[in-house]
Amino acid sequence: MEVTNRYITTKTHIDGAPKESLFELKTEALALSVEPGSNVVIVKNLYISIDPYQINRMKSQSSSQKSISRAVGIAPGEVIDTYGVAKVVASGNPNFEKDDLVVGFITWGEYSVLKEGTILNKLDTMGFPLTYHVGILAYAGFFEVCKPKKGEKVFVSAASGSVGNMVGQYAKQLGCYVVGCAGTKQKVELLKEKLGFDDAFNYKEETDLQSALKRYFPDGIDIYFDNVGGEMLEAAVDNMNTFGRIAVCGVIAEYTDAGKRAAPDMLNVVYKRIRIQGYLVVDYLNVYEDFISTTSDHLRTGNMQALEDITSGVENIPSAFIGLFRGDNIGKKVVKLADE
Amino acid sequence: MEVTNRYITTKTHIDGAPKESLFELKTEALALSVEPGSNVVIVKNLYISIDPYQINRMKSQSSSQKSISRAVGIAPGEVIDTYGVAKVVASGNPNFEKDDLVVGFITWGEYSVLKEGTILNKLDTMGFPLTYHVGILAYAGFFEVCKPKKGEKVFVSAASGSVGNMVGQYAKQLGCYVVGCAGTKQKVELLKEKLGFDDAFNYKEETDLQSALKRYFPDGIDIYFDNVGGEMLEAAVDNMNTFGRIAVCGVIAEYTDAGKRAAPDMLNVVYKRIRIQGYLVVDYLNVYEDFISTTSDHLRTGNMQALEDITSGVENIPSAFIGLFRGDNIGKKVVKLADE
Repeated sequence: MEVTNRYITTKTHIDGAPKESLFELKTEALALSVEPGSNVVIVKNLYISIDPYQINRMKSQSSSQKSISRAVGIAPGEVIDTYGVAKVVASGNPNFEKDDLVVGFITWGEYSVLKEGTILNKLDTMGFPLTYHVGILAYAGFFEVCKPKKGEKVFVSAASGSVGNMVGQYAKQLGCYVVGCAGTKQKVELLKEKLGFDDAFNYKEETDLQSALKRYFPDGIDIYFDNVGGEMLEAAVDNMNTFGRIAVCGVIAEYTDAGKRAAPDMLNVVYKRIRIQGYLVVDYLNVYEDFISTTSDHLRTGNMQALEDITSGVENIPSAFIGLFRGDNIGKKVVKLADE
Repeated sequence: MEVTNRYITTKTHIDGAPKESLFELKTEALALSVEPGSNVVIVKNLYISIDPYQINRMKSQSSSQKSISRAVGIAPGEVIDTYGVAKVVASGNPNFEKDDLVVGFITWGEYSVLKEGTILNKLDTMGFPLTYHVGILAYAGFFEVCKPKKGEKVFVSAASGSVGNMVGQYAKQLGCYVVGCAGTKQKVELLKEKLGFDDAFNYKEETDLQSALKRYFPDGIDIYFDNVGGEMLEAAVDNMNTFGRIAVCGVIAEYTDAGKRAAPDMLNVVYKRIRIQGYLVVDYLNVYEDFISTTSDHLRTGNMQALEDITSGVENIPSAFIGLFRGDNIGKKVVKLADE
C-alpha cells in the first residue's frame, strides 16, 4: 500500500524569530511496507509535541557555531524529528508490530519512517492522555534535578507553558508552596483557579522583577524552575534561599535573541550555596516508568490536570511552532495529525 | 596577668577597593584569665589567614543590602574574626587547656577572646605546616563539589592564589590534566615549574579568553574551579564539556566592583548539562579529618608543595589584605603574629 505523506521542512536555517515563510509543506509517495529484518518501523503520526528547543536546532552554523554541539542540527529541506505518539503501520523490527501505539522520536509529518536506533517505546494508553507523554521533562527536571522536599517554596517561570504547568502541579502534589509567572491575565487566573498554584503573577505588569519575587516569596525561594533565563533568572538568584536549586530547563529569552543573557550575581551563588543545573530529558529516561505511573495516578484521581493546547493538521505545524515564541499556547502545545 | 593586645579594625564600611587609611590599629589592656565555667577561651594568635571574602563583610548595608545575608557583617571599630592558628593562654572551656594549639575562628589581632560557640579545634602539628590548615576550602571545593575523576580536564583561575594552587595540586595528584591562569609571568612559571601544572597562562596577555581556553583545552574542560567570576566564567562555560562542573569558590571580579558580573550562556548550561555550584567551607567541616590526613601525606612525601606568602606583625594586616586585590600574594596569604 502506498500513501501520500505530507511533512514540514525548513527552507533555510533560522537565526532569529521563526516566520511562516521559512517553512514548507512537502509531499512524497510513501510505500507502507518494510524489508523483513531491516528493523525499520513505519508509523502513522497521531500527536506530535511542538517544542521551543527546536529553534536552536534550526540555527545556521555561521550565526551560532555552537548550535552544532548543542543538538543535532535540522538541515533545510530535511525531515524534522520530534517527540510524539504514533501507530505502527509496518514493522521490520521484532519489538513492534502493526497497530502498536508507540511514543518516541517521530516527525513533523503525517507518517514517519524510523530507522534502527530511533528512541521508541510501546505505549500503555490506560488512564493517561496520549499527548501527555511529553511531560517527562517536567517530571525529571523537578524531581531529579531539583530534589524537592515537602514544604519547600517553588517558583516556576513560563508556568502555564508545557513544562511549567506540570512542574507546578507536581510541586503542589508534593506539598510545596508554588508561585508561577506567566504573560497574560488569563494564564495567571488559570494557574490559580484550575491548576492549584498558591499564587501567580503577570511578569509583564511588574517593573521590578526582584521586588515582585520578594513580594511573592517573603521567606525566599528554595527551588526555581527556569524556563526563560534572562532577567527573571537574575531576579530569582537574588531571592534564593540558602542551598537553593535552580533547574535550567529552557532559556527562551536567549532562543531568538542571543544578546538577552542573564548575569546572575555569583556572590549570591557562593554565599547561598546555590546550585544551577542544566539538563536534558535524554539523561533521565531511567525515570520514564516512574513518570508514567505517578502522573497517570494523579490524572486519574483528578489531582492533576492535563493542560493541552491542540491544533490539528500537518499544515498548521509551522504556525503552532511560531506561536510558542509569542506565548500563544496555554499548556502543552500539540499538533494532532490523525485519529487513532 | 595582663597584656596589651593590639588589633586591627575598620574605621568605616568599605564599599570599593580597600585602602590603608580605612583601617586602624587599636590597643587594649587584656587580662589573660577567664571566669571558671564561663567557657571563654583566650588564645595568643600565631598565624591568621588573610582572605578576600572579608571585603564582602565590610560593605555597608546601603551599598549592598544583601551583604547582610551573605555573611555576618564586620562593624567599624569592632574586632574582625578570621580563620587562624593560635595557642591557648587561658581556658574556661573543659575541651581546651593552656598551651593547646588550636585552629578556628580567631581575630585580626595579637590575642583573641573566644566566646562559647566559636568554631575551634585542637591542632595536630605533626608533619603539616600550621599555616596550611586553611586549605580545606580547596579540598572541599574540589573533591566534594566538583566530584572529579582521574583523567578529567581541570581549569583553575587565580591558580597561584591560596585556594587555586592547592586545587591544581590535588587535581594533579588525582591524575587530572590541569591548566591554571594567573596574572604575572612569575606566577605562571611557578605553576608549571614548581607546582606541576600541565600548563598555565597569563590571562592579562590574552585578548580573547574564550579562544585562550580553546587553545589550552582542545578537548574541552570537565571541571572549572572558579575563583574570579566575570569574563573568565563566561569563557569557561563556553568551553565546558557535557556534564561539566563549575565550583564557584570566589568572585573576586565582583568583590570590589559589583558591575563586573558574568553573563554565562545558559543555552550552553542546558545543552551541556553544566552544574554551577556555590559553596562555603562551613558546609564541609565533615571532611576536615580527610583533608588533614590526605594533605599531610602529600606534603610529607613531597607530592604537594605548601605555597605560602607570609607577612609578620599585626600592623601589617591591612596591607596584606589590600594586596590580595592587587594580586600581590603568591599562594596563601598569612600574617604571622607570634612564634609558637
